[in-house]
Amino acid sequence: MEANGSYFNEGGGQDGPFDRLREECGVFGVFGYEDAASLTYYGLHTLQHRGEESAGICTSDGHTFRYHRGMGLVKEVFDKDRLASLEGDRAIGHVRYSTSGDSRLANAQPLVFKTRDGDLAVATNGNIVNAPMLRRELEQKGSIFQTTSDTEVIAHLIARSESDFVTAAKDALRQLVGGFAFLILTNDKLLVASDTYGLRPIVMGRLGDAWVFSSESCALDTIGADFVRAVEPGEMLVFDAMGYRSERFAPVAKRALCSMEFIYFSRPDSQLYDVNLHTARKRMGMRLAEEFPVEADLVSGVPDSSISAAIGYAEKAGIPYEMGMIKNKYSGRTFIQPSQELREQGVKMKLSAVRSVVEGKRVVLIDDSIVRGTTSRRIVKMLRDAGAKEVHLRIASPPFKNPCFYGIDTPTSDDLIASTHTVEQICEMTGADSLAFLSQPGMIEAIGGAFTKEASGGLCLACFDKEYPTPIGVSANMTSCGC
Amino acid sequence: MEANGSYFNEGGGQDGPFDRLREECGVFGVFGYEDAASLTYYGLHTLQHRGEESAGICTSDGHTFRYHRGMGLVKEVFDKDRLASLEGDRAIGHVRYSTSGDSRLANAQPLVFKTRDGDLAVATNGNIVNAPMLRRELEQKGSIFQTTSDTEVIAHLIARSESDFVTAAKDALRQLVGGFAFLILTNDKLLVASDTYGLRPIVMGRLGDAWVFSSESCALDTIGADFVRAVEPGEMLVFDAMGYRSERFAPVAKRALCSMEFIYFSRPDSQLYDVNLHTARKRMGMRLAEEFPVEADLVSGVPDSSISAAIGYAEKAGIPYEMGMIKNKYSGRTFIQPSQELREQGVKMKLSAVRSVVEGKRVVLIDDSIVRGTTSRRIVKMLRDAGAKEVHLRIASPPFKNPCFYGIDTPTSDDLIASTHTVEQICEMTGADSLAFLSQPGMIEAIGGAFTKEASGGLCLACFDKEYPTPIGVSANMTSCGC
Amino acid sequence: MEANGSYFNEGGGQDGPFDRLREECGVFGVFGYEDAASLTYYGLHTLQHRGEESAGICTSDGHTFRYHRGMGLVKEVFDKDRLASLEGDRAIGHVRYSTSGDSRLANAQPLVFKTRDGDLAVATNGNIVNAPMLRRELEQKGSIFQTTSDTEVIAHLIARSESDFVTAAKDALRQLVGGFAFLILTNDKLLVASDTYGLRPIVMGRLGDAWVFSSESCALDTIGADFVRAVEPGEMLVFDAMGYRSERFAPVAKRALCSMEFIYFSRPDSQLYDVNLHTARKRMGMRLAEEFPVEADLVSGVPDSSISAAIGYAEKAGIPYEMGMIKNKYSGRTFIQPSQELREQGVKMKLSAVRSVVEGKRVVLIDDSIVRGTTSRRIVKMLRDAGAKEVHLRIASPPFKNPCFYGIDTPTSDDLIASTHTVEQICEMTGADSLAFLSQPGMIEAIGGAFTKEASGGLCLACFDKEYPTPIGVSANMTSCGC
Amino acid sequence: MEANGSYFNEGGGQDGPFDRLREECGVFGVFGYEDAASLTYYGLHTLQHRGEESAGICTSDGHTFRYHRGMGLVKEVFDKDRLASLEGDRAIGHVRYSTSGDSRLANAQPLVFKTRDGDLAVATNGNIVNAPMLRRELEQKGSIFQTTSDTEVIAHLIARSESDFVTAAKDALRQLVGGFAFLILTNDKLLVASDTYGLRPIVMGRLGDAWVFSSESCALDTIGADFVRAVEPGEMLVFDAMGYRSERFAPVAKRALCSMEFIYFSRPDSQLYDVNLHTARKRMGMRLAEEFPVEADLVSGVPDSSISAAIGYAEKAGIPYEMGMIKNKYSGRTFIQPSQELREQGVKMKLSAVRSVVEGKRVVLIDDSIVRGTTSRRIVKMLRDAGAKEVHLRIASPPFKNPCFYGIDTPTSDDLIASTHTVEQICEMTGADSLAFLSQPGMIEAIGGAFTKEASGGLCLACFDKEYPTPIGVSANMTSCGC
Repeated sequence: MEANGSYFNEGGGQDGPFDRLREECGVFGVFGYEDAASLTYYGLHTLQHRGEESAGICTSDGHTFRYHRGMGLVKEVFDKDRLASLEGDRAIGHVRYSTSGDSRLANAQPLVFKTRDGDLAVATNGNIVNAPMLRRELEQKGSIFQTTSDTEVIAHLIARSESDFVTAAKDALRQLVGGFAFLILTNDKLLVASDTYGLRPIVMGRLGDAWVFSSESCALDTIGADFVRAVEPGEMLVFDAMGYRSERFAPVAKRALCSMEFIYFSRPDSQLYDVNLHTARKRMGMRLAEEFPVEADLVSGVPDSSISAAIGYAEKAGIPYEMGMIKNKYSGRTFIQPSQELREQGVKMKLSAVRSVVEGKRVVLIDDSIVRGTTSRRIVKMLRDAGAKEVHLRIASPPFKNPCFYGIDTPTSDDLIASTHTVEQICEMTGADSLAFLSQPGMIEAIGGAFTKEASGGLCLACFDKEYPTPIGVSANMTSCGC
Repeated sequence: MEANGSYFNEGGGQDGPFDRLREECGVFGVFGYEDAASLTYYGLHTLQHRGEESAGICTSDGHTFRYHRGMGLVKEVFDKDRLASLEGDRAIGHVRYSTSGDSRLANAQPLVFKTRDGDLAVATNGNIVNAPMLRRELEQKGSIFQTTSDTEVIAHLIARSESDFVTAAKDALRQLVGGFAFLILTNDKLLVASDTYGLRPIVMGRLGDAWVFSSESCALDTIGADFVRAVEPGEMLVFDAMGYRSERFAPVAKRALCSMEFIYFSRPDSQLYDVNLHTARKRMGMRLAEEFPVEADLVSGVPDSSISAAIGYAEKAGIPYEMGMIKNKYSGRTFIQPSQELREQGVKMKLSAVRSVVEGKRVVLIDDSIVRGTTSRRIVKMLRDAGAKEVHLRIASPPFKNPCFYGIDTPTSDDLIASTHTVEQICEMTGADSLAFLSQPGMIEAIGGAFTKEASGGLCLACFDKEYPTPIGVSANMTSCGC
Repeated sequence: MEANGSYFNEGGGQDGPFDRLREECGVFGVFGYEDAASLTYYGLHTLQHRGEESAGICTSDGHTFRYHRGMGLVKEVFDKDRLASLEGDRAIGHVRYSTSGDSRLANAQPLVFKTRDGDLAVATNGNIVNAPMLRRELEQKGSIFQTTSDTEVIAHLIARSESDFVTAAKDALRQLVGGFAFLILTNDKLLVASDTYGLRPIVMGRLGDAWVFSSESCALDTIGADFVRAVEPGEMLVFDAMGYRSERFAPVAKRALCSMEFIYFSRPDSQLYDVNLHTARKRMGMRLAEEFPVEADLVSGVPDSSISAAIGYAEKAGIPYEMGMIKNKYSGRTFIQPSQELREQGVKMKLSAVRSVVEGKRVVLIDDSIVRGTTSRRIVKMLRDAGAKEVHLRIASPPFKNPCFYGIDTPTSDDLIASTHTVEQICEMTGADSLAFLSQPGMIEAIGGAFTKEASGGLCLACFDKEYPTPIGVSANMTSCGC
Repeated sequence: MEANGSYFNEGGGQDGPFDRLREECGVFGVFGYEDAASLTYYGLHTLQHRGEESAGICTSDGHTFRYHRGMGLVKEVFDKDRLASLEGDRAIGHVRYSTSGDSRLANAQPLVFKTRDGDLAVATNGNIVNAPMLRRELEQKGSIFQTTSDTEVIAHLIARSESDFVTAAKDALRQLVGGFAFLILTNDKLLVASDTYGLRPIVMGRLGDAWVFSSESCALDTIGADFVRAVEPGEMLVFDAMGYRSERFAPVAKRALCSMEFIYFSRPDSQLYDVNLHTARKRMGMRLAEEFPVEADLVSGVPDSSISAAIGYAEKAGIPYEMGMIKNKYSGRTFIQPSQELREQGVKMKLSAVRSVVEGKRVVLIDDSIVRGTTSRRIVKMLRDAGAKEVHLRIASPPFKNPCFYGIDTPTSDDLIASTHTVEQICEMTGADSLAFLSQPGMIEAIGGAFTKEASGGLCLACFDKEYPTPIGVSANMTSCGC
């Protein structure tokens, strides 16, 4: 899969018909560090691949909120003066990727609210399945919404509760169905929460006396913080002047961490529990070589997201790894797409095949997944046009058949090619000489570590096997994230 | 070497003390294609790694010049309206990287002049060694300069000549000493020239009935053009309504193509003569493994520039290739650098080591070159901080000892660590457990193809062996390019 | 008074210590015109003097809201594409001026909310005296606020009502104490309301079949609409597909239109009821000449706000009117203020005296009001430095002694020089040779027209005589507007 | 005349078909003041009415040039950082207004050149009649031009001279025919020159030990400098470390200062020799009342440029002065012009008539001049639409019949309505009830002061009487300025 909204992408320039998964958000928080905004800036910059559309930081010095949000990359939204003005020793930040229809500044997070208890800021990653229903109920009671974001629901639930703030937050979280990680800031507290199944990752780290929180561990490394642990499914952490305590808003459930984080979204230098992402992906490639070997002259990966798997495949198969495709990393938001006419004349956009590498060769091309199939077809054609004698497509994950309701922007089943076609049909449609997908058990085994202790690997595999960990209501927000 | 001003870099964010080589420019030209500006846009976008500071396009419809230049990336300088306004079937374009002192819009190319013969536009890649002398002579005769760019010199030489335009251009080129590729546009002609030794690369291609020219072949691929051949040393091509003809402004000399193009600057999917860059680099890594093997647990490369060599080293040595370091691709011009205080606390900027990969491991780290040594020291420390047990540094080129006068921005000899220190001393300074450089013969052999037919490989190796192909005057423009 | 936030100002560049009154907002609405956004653009542009800080337009096509808001002038916030995207035949717009502390995009209007009944947009001019109390009550019930603007209060009151929308709006308006004009838009209705005393002006006009609404009549003229009438105190107009109807949310009370609209805020080409502003101001100047004549060589006004009065004074006194002071109209938001050092050396900012006009002359200088007195002192000094022999200050309104609670940003009593000093003391402090203020009866008589029918002239004169038309609670929002 | 490119205009928004005169430039210079750039910023800001399109400042600290130029107003082109970076105790600056075709950054001044003698910067106001011929000669000799600006010619003439710099400059100036004021900066000298007839104004002033130069005296006042004297026709002042000396590059000729400076261009607070502009304009209005009285109810002026004359007319005629027309001062470059459809529906742009003032009244409308007549027709219609019973047009200058070759952007004779039509015909075309122009003797007498000592008043009156002070070659640059 050509990468977008993942570590491997930059800027979001579309490249042909829409055919990609999009992560929705990254969150980052700091509690107890003098210049919390700067740490958050560097943290969000490291999480940029999780959302390139908007960025925001909200800080508190214990008395006053300061915040800034804007459209664009972290480095575009903040300049030195902006950053310096965000005083305070606690902060939460957010990067957001959204479907174009909702690309609005008003939806940029953290969202900030004024309530009876004072200022309240919320940053989320994920999707609340029952948000539409909760929203309708709140509106019936006279609540006013300012955004189309699910995130606003939790603020209203908290504001309307008659309990104290921490209890109100727990009550609110308990009402939510879905996959999400929350950071909630007030002038005296910072709350960190993960959904009941731990669908969306969030970890905590330590930097001197300060605490930091991040969607991915790589952002802890970047700021020099030590990884402490993942926030547990159904856990809510409360940080204030007294230190911190862990509370549960839901009984312990089976963990179901999103498997696409392993396949595609997380940065290769992040780790989920005890598993490094690059290593897991390389193992997936090795396993794929075992499951579906093929005689060939070289192995290449679709850059950047499939490089680790391609290297694993090459190593295991004993076939040289070569750079058969290359991606222009300068493409991005403001890049002018070639006209249809120019594209037909052969103007490439982001990806191109390297003729001098592939000409006359039998190529194994590794991709991480297939969504609609259009990108695969284009890539295979590109390789053939560049002279490849054979193109064997190997996908480092099982067939992607079911839409996600937990924060990944996916098409409906009808548009997921693996939902409507057999592997043979897909192979034919893409024009490849052969096609194979990594098996589900193979994938779980390759991920390994903490994830092999149980049958499902503690993973949400719904996109492959339709075993959604939560109920999926009819009114569920079907195709996108609720950040 | 951490990459800047090469394919492997994006945005130019500095990362610690200045320690990098900088390519200076990329040029792209079109003759005879209806929407020449659009092709040039995509060509320059592909050459973006050769210069991220400014970009410009000048077109002609045979009667009128239209041009636009600006600071920033190609995608930032041009929007749809700008591009659409650049009508004409011929165009030349330029991307520029320069030392910060000269980062001025006034120096952005193509430079456009009004002369007796009408409008004249020039785009260059390279450096004219005797430009200061030529400039002084021209000023004595009353010429006025508007830029600090060497490129202006050739326009004045042409304007002052009493011969016809083509003869004047040949006369002018003959007076220049240095390494350069020129694209010169008037309302009825396009000239393409390479210096006497072919130091800076420039190739021609064919797209239907149109001709295209590019610093690197990868830009031909991107627009769907076919590679025709390299412009020869001392050759000047003249394109006009009559077709084209090749002229020589200098007798045939020994070719001396810049070896740093192989090591670092060119995109991996470009080819120089019959050699693909990724493949050459992989072979350099393999050769390095033969010359300087070491027992280790994994091989990593400094991203992105040393990845090909690292893969080659791993393959040859039979040691797994792993992603031990990672680069944040979102860094760039507007990124706010961490304060000294934050950096001391461990905030990383662009590069970081992957703890879960390197911890407890013996690491072979491949870099393409060492300039001042500061980056190497920093990287080695990063790996050790991340738990690497041993760090063996392997450099996929010979020691870089001498400054370049042909368009690469290098420090003076005093600041080139390999010029003032032995390999052992450098090893100690970087803190590595061992250090080795690829041998010069090894490098030439690894490059291979057309470059092995003669002892020097038809390469300029002056940065390694001080054999400058041209005289180097005392007044030579020592440290930067003349674009 | 040097003008800011009035017709006579442009750009808001501060000129010396804060010493000015600031109007807070202008509103403009359209119902039933195909391209409602464009009309609103031109209307707001005409009302720009009422607020230069932010601008916004929200449209509806009967089904969907579209809106855009931004910091800056109308012409800066909207470009052609933005404007064209705001489809719909009804629109409300807003220009805002606020104290710097609240200069936030989040407070820019129209505010847009999502409620049970669908989208709701509100634009206001004025201040709700009891907003803090209402807000506290709403927060207690769990309402969340997104802005610091009073305007949000009315949206919450409507959303929480269990009645139908129109009844809910009337109920909400009935709870508000203060001076305000409201435009409220839903997908099927447009409501227009004025406070119980008609403190803040709002008029309706007719353009073909469409209805338009504006804070000042001048914006009707600009778009070619006919003036119909002022919205009456306590009246709420309801526009929908059925036509329109007038409702009352409060019993008929004594009208108390803000007298500062006459003195300073409204554009000279606006009319309030049957009185043109330029003409009224000229009459105030004439009356001032009758009340406080002085022997002099010339009359000048502080530009631009006091020109009409100065011309009236000159005409009545038979003394030549001259341009003794001039204002640089290019000053504005981005203008760099001179350093203290430069100011001491005589660098002027916005206003300067014209030496060749005033040198050696006895000058009558007309200003519209004195707030803190600092500007007056500075202006008198400027004239003396330019050689004026005598400076007689004549103020075309009574002494400004009491803060406003209805939407004018005034200092507290302690900082109103006329509240703490006698006329003689003020004269001495400003350095003028003589000083006089227009009498209150004189002002009312000069305003004339519909305003002479009753003792108070149907005006709010609280800033002069402390007769506030509404109760002023302890918790009242003392110093600024609630827009 | 509706004002554009004069003090009375802001932002250049077109209002109907092109019908205006445009001043071309303002220049400002400083020698010997520590922070020369800041003074120049304030000086140029005061001269902004002379050119709103681009602005630039070049400074020298005696060794190094620093400069910045940009499109837009002074306040838009410079921010604090930019200004602070322009170190040095001498500076020249420029504001430029140009025909849209040449609205290019490349033409923004000061132009900066690198010559044998070092850096050279030039800022000009005016036009060189023989520039095209000089340019052709220079190009024949091999000179290269970068701009279409006449200003570049003088730099080439200086650079090609074999004499010392001062002699070269004098030689160069001697070759120029036309109307111009020059500021020329090198690292050790500042030259100030006025053309042979003093057509374009330039004055010198003193601020402590520093010298300042400005197109108009008002900018001296703004920065607190004392007016010293006008630079004389044919005079070149040389400032350097030794102090200053006055040289002549041309024999003393009859002064012929541009009369349009009096009528329209200069700020009302400027003075030309001993005449204040507001006062002169008021006298022109008084004289016009004497020459062409009419029975009427009120007098109004077209804002802002005709206000002084209107006040004079009213005072002399004993008819009340009223604000019958008003201009929206927020219009400007980025203002979106109403569509044709909206304009037909009555949407006004910049000017509007005040119905409540003019309805049912006999109006005398004063304008400063008539160029094409389109604006006059529009204004008369506007007043009639607003209910004026009679409209009597009175023009405070003689009929404008001949194009200017000295820096004023005028149409050709064919498009000057007074060149092709009688006063009666013009009256009919504009739709006025009566029309009259101030007589030429009346104008000269009204200007008065130093200008009454000779028949022509020491004025260039060519636009009225075709008596061009210099030869006008066939190849003269007919319609615009050469800045």
